[in-house]
Amino acid sequence: MGRVYLVGAGPGDPELLTLKAYRLLKEAPVVLYDRLVDERVLALTPGEKVYVGKEEGESEKQEEIHRLLLRHARAHPFVVRLKGGDPMVFGRGGEEVLFLLRHGVPVEVVPGVTSLLASGLPLTHRGLAHGFAAVSGVLEGGGYPDLRPFARVPTLVVLMGVGRRVWIAKELLRLGRNPREPTLFVERASTPKERRVLAALEEVAEGKVEVRPPALWILGEVVRVFAEKEAPVDALALGG
Amino acid sequence: MGRVYLVGAGPGDPELLTLKAYRLLKEAPVVLYDRLVDERVLALTPGEKVYVGKEEGESEKQEEIHRLLLRHARAHPFVVRLKGGDPMVFGRGGEEVLFLLRHGVPVEVVPGVTSLLASGLPLTHRGLAHGFAAVSGVLEGGGYPDLRPFARVPTLVVLMGVGRRVWIAKELLRLGRNPREPTLFVERASTPKERRVLAALEEVAEGKVEVRPPALWILGEVVRVFAEKEAPVDALALGG
Repeated sequence: MGRVYLVGAGPGDPELLTLKAYRLLKEAPVVLYDRLVDERVLALTPGEKVYVGKEEGESEKQEEIHRLLLRHARAHPFVVRLKGGDPMVFGRGGEEVLFLLRHGVPVEVVPGVTSLLASGLPLTHRGLAHGFAAVSGVLEGGGYPDLRPFARVPTLVVLMGVGRRVWIAKELLRLGRNPREPTLFVERASTPKERRVLAALEEVAEGKVEVRPPALWILGEVVRVFAEKEAPVDALALGG
Repeated sequence: MGRVYLVGAGPGDPELLTLKAYRLLKEAPVVLYDRLVDERVLALTPGEKVYVGKEEGESEKQEEIHRLLLRHARAHPFVVRLKGGDPMVFGRGGEEVLFLLRHGVPVEVVPGVTSLLASGLPLTHRGLAHGFAAVSGVLEGGGYPDLRPFARVPTLVVLMGVGRRVWIAKELLRLGRNPREPTLFVERASTPKERRVLAALEEVAEGKVEVRPPALWILGEVVRVFAEKEAPVDALALGG
C-alpha cells in the first residue's frame, strides 16, 4: 500500500512550491491534481497525471476522488495528491485524509503557500487589523455560507466568492460592515495573468464590479496600506 | 540601492521553504532574520547573518530594524529579510514594506508557508467549519487584543497566545464560546521538538494546561477530526 502525500501546490508560481513538493513531484509515479493547479507546476512532474478537478460546489465527485486515491495507492509505491494553495484550507483535504486513514493508507500532509496570502498584502497591520478571517463563498454541495460569524473581523478574505459577490456584499452590509470599506479582488494571483480590481463594498453590492474567477477577495483597511502615493500597490513586485 | 526580498521561512522544516526562498538564501550577501526562524533554515545561507529578533510585544525595536534594512539595502546588491512563517501574517511585514518603499528601496514579497497551517489539521472541514480566523495574543506594543470580532468563528487560531492562554480562554468563554470546545496547542510545529497538547477551553481557562511557547493554539471542532480511533492525530506524519 503506497503512502499518499497530500501536497499544497501554492498559488500558481512554480517557484512558490516548497522544496518538499518539488522533490515529490519529480519522483512521483502518479499525480492526482485539482482544477486550480497551475499548468507550469504540473509540467514539472514526469509521472502520470490524473485530473480529478471539480467545479465549485460540485460535491458528488468527492467520493469518486476518494475511490481513485485508494486505487492508485494500491497500485503504486506512493501517490501525490496535488491541491492548489494549501491542502488543508478549503480544499476538503481533511476528508481525503480521513477516508485514506480509515482504509489503512498512510498519509502525509505537505503544507503549501495558501492562496489567501498570494496578494502580497499584509492581512494584519499595526493599527488597522489585529487578525483576519477566511471564508468560502460556496459550501461543499453548493450551499450559501453563514457570514454572521465573520461580519466583524478586521480583514476578511473570501475564496470562491466571485460568482456570488453581489450576494456576499449585500449580506455583509446587512450585518453591519462599512459600505465604504475598501475591498480588493486579485484574479489569478501570482500568475502572469494576475489582475487587481479595487472597489468599495457598496460598489460590489450594487453589481458595478467586473471580475472573473478564480479570484481572491480581500475586504478591509489593509487593502489601502500600499495605496498611498509613495507606495502604490503596483510598486510591489510579486512572484515571477 | 539593493532590492529587499521579504521572505517567508515557513514553520521550521527546511523542506517547507519555497524554491524561491531557497534560491534567495543561497545567493544572498546578507540575511536579516527574526527570532523564530529555524536554525536549520539559517544554516542554508552562506551570506552574512544579522539577527534582528525581538521578544513578543517588544515594539521599540521595529524602528531599529527599519534602519538596519535601509543601511544594508544601500550597501548590498540585494538583501533577504527572513521571517518565520509567512512575512505578511502577524509579522509586521507591511510596516517594513511601507518604510522601504517610502525610502525608495524596491521591495519584493516572497510568501511562505504560514505557521497557522503547520499543524496538518484542516482549518475548514465539511459540516464542522466553513471558515477560520487567526488572531495574535499580543498586539504590537504588548497590548491585549479585542477578541469580540473573533468570538464566533468556527475555527480560531491564536498565535503568540501561550503566555496569555488563561486570559484568552476566559475572555472567549465570557464572549460565549463553548466551555467543552476542544482546543489543541502545537509547540514548535514542524520541528523535531514538536509537542501536542489537547485540552478543553474551560481547562485552559482554569490554568490546568501546561504548554511552552512558541506554540500554535487551534480552537474548534476541527481539532477532533483525526481524533477518532481509526485515525488518531499521531497517524499523521507531518514534515521531516
